[in-house]
Amino acid sequence: MPAPAPSLPAAFVRDLQAAFAAGSILTAREDVIPYGFDGTAALKQLPGVVVFPKDAAGVSTVLKLARTHRVPVVSRGSGTGLSGGSVPVPGCVVLCLADMNRILELDAKNLTLAAEPGVITQRIYDAADAAGLFYPPDPGSMKISTIGGNVAENAGGLRGLKYGVTRNYVMGLEVVLADGSIVTLGNKCVKDVAGYNLRDLFIGSEGTLGVITRVLLRLLPKPGARQTLLATYASMDAAAETVSAIIAEKIIPCTLEFLDQRTLRCVEAFAKVGLPTEAEALLLIETDGHPAAVADEASRIERICTQHQALAVRRAASAEEGVRLATARRSAFSALARLRPTTILEDATVPRSELARMIRFINETAQKHRVEVATFGHFGDGNLHPTFLTDERNPEEMHRVEAAMKEIFDYALSLGGTLTGEHGVGLAKKAYLPQQLGDATMSLLRTIKRSLDPDGLLNPGKIFD
Amino acid sequence: MPAPAPSLPAAFVRDLQAAFAAGSILTAREDVIPYGFDGTAALKQLPGVVVFPKDAAGVSTVLKLARTHRVPVVSRGSGTGLSGGSVPVPGCVVLCLADMNRILELDAKNLTLAAEPGVITQRIYDAADAAGLFYPPDPGSMKISTIGGNVAENAGGLRGLKYGVTRNYVMGLEVVLADGSIVTLGNKCVKDVAGYNLRDLFIGSEGTLGVITRVLLRLLPKPGARQTLLATYASMDAAAETVSAIIAEKIIPCTLEFLDQRTLRCVEAFAKVGLPTEAEALLLIETDGHPAAVADEASRIERICTQHQALAVRRAASAEEGVRLATARRSAFSALARLRPTTILEDATVPRSELARMIRFINETAQKHRVEVATFGHFGDGNLHPTFLTDERNPEEMHRVEAAMKEIFDYALSLGGTLTGEHGVGLAKKAYLPQQLGDATMSLLRTIKRSLDPDGLLNPGKIFD
Repeated sequence: MPAPAPSLPAAFVRDLQAAFAAGSILTAREDVIPYGFDGTAALKQLPGVVVFPKDAAGVSTVLKLARTHRVPVVSRGSGTGLSGGSVPVPGCVVLCLADMNRILELDAKNLTLAAEPGVITQRIYDAADAAGLFYPPDPGSMKISTIGGNVAENAGGLRGLKYGVTRNYVMGLEVVLADGSIVTLGNKCVKDVAGYNLRDLFIGSEGTLGVITRVLLRLLPKPGARQTLLATYASMDAAAETVSAIIAEKIIPCTLEFLDQRTLRCVEAFAKVGLPTEAEALLLIETDGHPAAVADEASRIERICTQHQALAVRRAASAEEGVRLATARRSAFSALARLRPTTILEDATVPRSELARMIRFINETAQKHRVEVATFGHFGDGNLHPTFLTDERNPEEMHRVEAAMKEIFDYALSLGGTLTGEHGVGLAKKAYLPQQLGDATMSLLRTIKRSLDPDGLLNPGKIFD
Repeated sequence: MPAPAPSLPAAFVRDLQAAFAAGSILTAREDVIPYGFDGTAALKQLPGVVVFPKDAAGVSTVLKLARTHRVPVVSRGSGTGLSGGSVPVPGCVVLCLADMNRILELDAKNLTLAAEPGVITQRIYDAADAAGLFYPPDPGSMKISTIGGNVAENAGGLRGLKYGVTRNYVMGLEVVLADGSIVTLGNKCVKDVAGYNLRDLFIGSEGTLGVITRVLLRLLPKPGARQTLLATYASMDAAAETVSAIIAEKIIPCTLEFLDQRTLRCVEAFAKVGLPTEAEALLLIETDGHPAAVADEASRIERICTQHQALAVRRAASAEEGVRLATARRSAFSALARLRPTTILEDATVPRSELARMIRFINETAQKHRVEVATFGHFGDGNLHPTFLTDERNPEEMHRVEAAMKEIFDYALSLGGTLTGEHGVGLAKKAYLPQQLGDATMSLLRTIKRSLDPDGLLNPGKIFD
């Protein structure tokens, strides 16, 4: 791939200004600063220009001009990413999709919702909810992240075990390719095998293969009931055994979250919902579905927790209390972020059976390298969030953080795990990717990238080192 | 793409014979005849040679030799396909995966099953069932089709509405690429966003991008209960309204099958399970899950059927009767195949809301062209099987069948549907594919094909005209 232009050509900016209204382009240094970073610690780069297209044709115009002038394109929504996927590269145009923010259709008969990429995820959830329907993917950032970003990163969330991730709810996409052509992939048919599935190739491609300009989402009927339980433990192993026992009893809760003591204390100090801060580990368990099934499952979960040495099991007395507890859990990242100047939220993920081993290793590794790590995460689907509390201005400490992180990645891979369960590769993990995928698969990834983006202008330097 | 060799080079066969035991190669005309067709009417072509590798290394050897000698490769399992995807092309080697038929692992903790591609789908279901688990995809052919073929075609089945299709249960694949390299895609992690999702690109790629040599499947806990109901109707519209009403009441049955009168009579004559043959339409409805939920949902479904003018609603008295009724429905294709010399099973699929309109159109079109069509299918997911009962030896009648089929495809597409819900494109529908996908998407498909199979040797002439 030939290298893109190192700095932004003035002619490109002139052509952009000719094609877009003045209010849709930012060029002044002070205006583009907010687009120079995302939710990832220690990564920033000022973009040359930021453009806000209003539709797919506008996106196509940007990509065609970028190709003519050999300018790299970094697309973004709200910039909540945690792997640096939307951090600009030198001399790039940032293509911000925030102005494409309309929900286009809710089709209750076919259980689908069509939206532009800049719609905030929470709005999708709310629109479905108002129609008695349910959009399950719930990334921690859902109150501020955009659906386009969720799809580009294949965002996960708390309900992965039972409901899957964003990918499982995308029926169709409109995508603008590197050459500016616009393709539609997928439709409202529950079954469709006409031609290759390219929709799933773009989901999770982190802006490196095309720009998503429309999503068609699958909705479910809203579960009739939901019950939230909290169980506390004196040992993490007992919590892990509880999780295995619940699944062995053929109960698949919609949420099965884990907080270690450090996270628990932080969250309680932040959210003040009455969490028992003396426990070593806490499980937040939600079951949903038919009211009779939920009532029965909640009782059985309570019994299983007790049988597995829970210190206490508490049922949320009302739906509101359930939401309050889940919301407290969602605040874990924000709560932890108050402790030290820099918060690095990792997402090493392992097969569920290896969770207890993985958590033990994380704690030992943190001790060994004298770094502060608080761990929480999605216990049901093996998706952990070891969170490093550190200070990026201290190179010596950062060096120890990196060493610990490397060992944690190595160990997760040795257990058949992955570097990243839901945050993506972006800039943050690209150096580790070949270790997980191996040469043959990396070569296949590069083949796909080259064939869809022959000039290497779409989010260059991401995913691939 | 340069054209592959028109006939099989003798040197290729010699190299194959040097690499494989004699029992793993067929060359005699009478031996290769069974590999000259699949389940698709009116398509056949003798292969030059058939080889049965025992492992991925053997598959890699075949692909490397094929590349050296420029020989096309058509891979197949049991050959139950309904779009000609595994029909040989002139001068090809048929790579038959039937000897790679081991279930490699059932991991109850992680709810996964690993298997070689030649395992019969029913064996996967049975192995899961024996462990108290559940493999939901149930293509009509599951007693004889292979899991590798199911993945290559992204096979559907009766449980699509609630449980999705084969794709939704594939966590990982091992694939041999055109150059003979072996890649592993996916793993046991419920969440994994490390690099592009290429697993989903190979699912449903119909043998044109690589050869699947191992599958890692996701299992579910076995539902605690199941209830089967039969409802009969004097009009198809009333049946369609029942389906909409069930979903509007937020019930998602695991099966929601439809049989028209012609199919109904054939199935009853064939299976003799006491189906009411006077009805214009029959719905076979199954709900599964928690016993309390199933009991409640079955009662509500019964009420909804009655409210929507069902002539009669009957509940299966036992699990055995439920299985018997579902098995009778599964025999629809075989039952219809007895009526005329040639049976063409189509799978035009539309958004669920358009089903009644689509069925009406099929009936009108059959009348207009004076062709016999029996229609049944998966009502819940819009996946219809208009089945043409005809005689391929009668060119005049076949001409009318093709004219009717073309009109049915056109109409399905005009309703936002697809040419093929679960059978694939293969040879049978490739002429229609550009109409559905449009130029930009077709060009994208070709780009992918060229990048993964630059010599055009993997199942050439399929999907693309």
